Amino acid sequence: MSRITALETADVRFPTSLMLDGSDAMNPDPDYSAAYVEIHTDATDGLVGHGFVFTIGRGNDVQVAAIEALANHLVGRDVDALLADMGGTWRELVHDSQLRWLGPEKGVMHMAIGAVVNALWDLLAKREGKPLWQVLAAMTPEQLVDLIDFRYLTDALTPDEALQILRAAEPGRAEREAQLLRDGYPAYTTTPGWLGYDDEKLARLCHEAVEEGFSQIKLKVGGDLADDVRRLGIARAAVGPDIRIAVDANQRWDVDAAVAWIKELASFDLAWVEEPTSPDDVLGHAAIASGIAPIPVATGEHMANRVMFKQFLQIDALQVLQLDATRVAGVNENVAILLLAAKFGVPVCPHAGGVGLCEAVQHLAMFDFVAVSGSLDDRMIEFVDHLHEHFVTPVDVRDGRYHAPTAPGAGTEMRSGSLAAHSVETRG
Amino acid sequence: MSRITALETADVRFPTSLMLDGSDAMNPDPDYSAAYVEIHTDATDGLVGHGFVFTIGRGNDVQVAAIEALANHLVGRDVDALLADMGGTWRELVHDSQLRWLGPEKGVMHMAIGAVVNALWDLLAKREGKPLWQVLAAMTPEQLVDLIDFRYLTDALTPDEALQILRAAEPGRAEREAQLLRDGYPAYTTTPGWLGYDDEKLARLCHEAVEEGFSQIKLKVGGDLADDVRRLGIARAAVGPDIRIAVDANQRWDVDAAVAWIKELASFDLAWVEEPTSPDDVLGHAAIASGIAPIPVATGEHMANRVMFKQFLQIDALQVLQLDATRVAGVNENVAILLLAAKFGVPVCPHAGGVGLCEAVQHLAMFDFVAVSGSLDDRMIEFVDHLHEHFVTPVDVRDGRYHAPTAPGAGTEMRSGSLAAHSVETRG
Repeated sequence: MSRITALETADVRFPTSLMLDGSDAMNPDPDYSAAYVEIHTDATDGLVGHGFVFTIGRGNDVQVAAIEALANHLVGRDVDALLADMGGTWRELVHDSQLRWLGPEKGVMHMAIGAVVNALWDLLAKREGKPLWQVLAAMTPEQLVDLIDFRYLTDALTPDEALQILRAAEPGRAEREAQLLRDGYPAYTTTPGWLGYDDEKLARLCHEAVEEGFSQIKLKVGGDLADDVRRLGIARAAVGPDIRIAVDANQRWDVDAAVAWIKELASFDLAWVEEPTSPDDVLGHAAIASGIAPIPVATGEHMANRVMFKQFLQIDALQVLQLDATRVAGVNENVAILLLAAKFGVPVCPHAGGVGLCEAVQHLAMFDFVAVSGSLDDRMIEFVDHLHEHFVTPVDVRDGRYHAPTAPGAGTEMRSGSLAAHSVETRG
Repeated sequence: MSRITALETADVRFPTSLMLDGSDAMNPDPDYSAAYVEIHTDATDGLVGHGFVFTIGRGNDVQVAAIEALANHLVGRDVDALLADMGGTWRELVHDSQLRWLGPEKGVMHMAIGAVVNALWDLLAKREGKPLWQVLAAMTPEQLVDLIDFRYLTDALTPDEALQILRAAEPGRAEREAQLLRDGYPAYTTTPGWLGYDDEKLARLCHEAVEEGFSQIKLKVGGDLADDVRRLGIARAAVGPDIRIAVDANQRWDVDAAVAWIKELASFDLAWVEEPTSPDDVLGHAAIASGIAPIPVATGEHMANRVMFKQFLQIDALQVLQLDATRVAGVNENVAILLLAAKFGVPVCPHAGGVGLCEAVQHLAMFDFVAVSGSLDDRMIEFVDHLHEHFVTPVDVRDGRYHAPTAPGAGTEMRSGSLAAHSVETRG
């Protein structure tokens, strides 16, 4: 038997605001950061599980404190037992009644559980010697269903329905896995579109995106309507009529304002409108979706938990579901969300960028293709070309596609040199 | 000019789990706690603003860390200017783009802002020499509207509509204020109903509640149906047919299970069903409300922010709105929620109990009566007889009513002896 000996945390910050990388209508000067955790054990294999929560700077120390509050649950525990029952492990953490009060199931405490859950999955995948997506894709439908907490979901998705979805996808698993290893998974790029970039840089990066093989780009909007019209004109001219252009308002608008603003941009043939308003506003998104149809609404990166995703799907408030690797409580909850999306027939196009989100979320999208939705139609993973050099197994994005990772683990391990160089002292 | 010199925090914990006070179907053993903050200034008046977030134990240290993360915003600032523009102060804190990422507007970070906002209101009320409810009730409709951030609300409530509601209530303010000072505000009691109490204690406390003048009691349910039927029988026999009995499931059920369970309890003439499912499930509550009508659904103590309240009101998913003093971002956001409730004609029956929630939330209910809804119909404040002795101005509940506080401040100041006796060392 091996035991968990320590949860080691780090407050990792990159000064991205200096270049206005990541600038949008709600986040003018993010400093991409990670509240990072390593799970150490006394096993002779020497393997360490790595996980993190992505934040944009201030408050990263609070997120680290929340991860540290979970150490009592884990240090000293039998790690083999925890990894053998990841469904039970998830439920134990999320259902701690005292910690639950701090959400419930949302915000800092829920994301902290996500970091720890993801670190355990990283450890599990390393022990199996496989990338996380292949670990998940090799599990039986029954094992996958057992990962999920169906509390609050059964009016939209029952365990039996989840089993049926997974069983229906079983026959083609091997073929799709081979296809992924050969061709990778489609990507789109947000690199050209940050609000803080000038017109010349926007045009240049749009041209580069096309040259690099991307079939979709995304622009930040919502700061100023005239600017948005001008920038969309530049982008459309640069990429031509056949490349899809999505826009992202980062929660800038109220419901009526969103509909009015988007109507002014509709002539640019928008692929989707992302985060038009508060991520909590199920009814507001439904009203916006109906007001701007047939332009799809995309959202999810700030959606707190599976209960919110359930409702957005129930009333067709989103048409593109943007899974995030570190916003909800880790892999288990994201498997539930993938199954909800499959049940409602909505494509999943994961949110990525930031620090390490590309590295982490690609595993979930690839698992979805192999074992859940079985489809690449209208699906692609966001790509932003920032900060990949800090990861032990950086993404391999070429020709507009994520090439499938083959290294063991969940992709969440940061290079030790990067950790040392960018960790700051957390609190006094 | 005076400046803020320090935010002093304390991690305050009471071992309530020893007596099973506060035990319910989701929270078997809470240790009532407060993440406490004092705002000190260099003003010669020597006044200090006090605020807190109520938690139930583990994680209280994380909540304290989140409050401390706000010190950078406030220490050194001109406190007169901050208090003169509480709307602007609220927006500055809630719209900090980097901290906002940790919610947005939910969970640990949002509640931390609430503690600081409430502490500033406590300081403001002390400077004016009045209790908070009278401070708010003396503000003009225009001043009150300026406290509110209408972002994400305008599809349900515009600033003009809020002004109209407040102006309509202006004529009777003086009369209702006098009425409150004379008669107080109705209360109901949850003291008899904790799930951990045995039948004998339940019956005894029910009798005492009637003798003490309460016209409504509340029982925790959702653990075991047979137990609930037996306990409701005991309670109904003890209080007679004229005392209202509400039940509280503390988020225990899925949608269909809630409807089925409540139908088994309906013969006991329920005043309302509280927190039947996840506080995030707008659509689920609407389905439950329609399934158990005419029994009202009550919820709100775990609702993350004004955007969630807006939606519950928009689709009639709650019929009793349970405001909480420390779940959202403080007084300003609660004023917005009171106005939303008034717009939709839904009574507000605040959640209280815990540590200091009774002391804090009575000010909001009394302000609502004087200056917003102008009504006591179907309205009452929860009362639980725990831990009041730790506050400088404990509530005065007699004859089933909250007697109006007259001491300056927001009711949020803990006795220094209690702070010293119950503070624990936060983190290493």
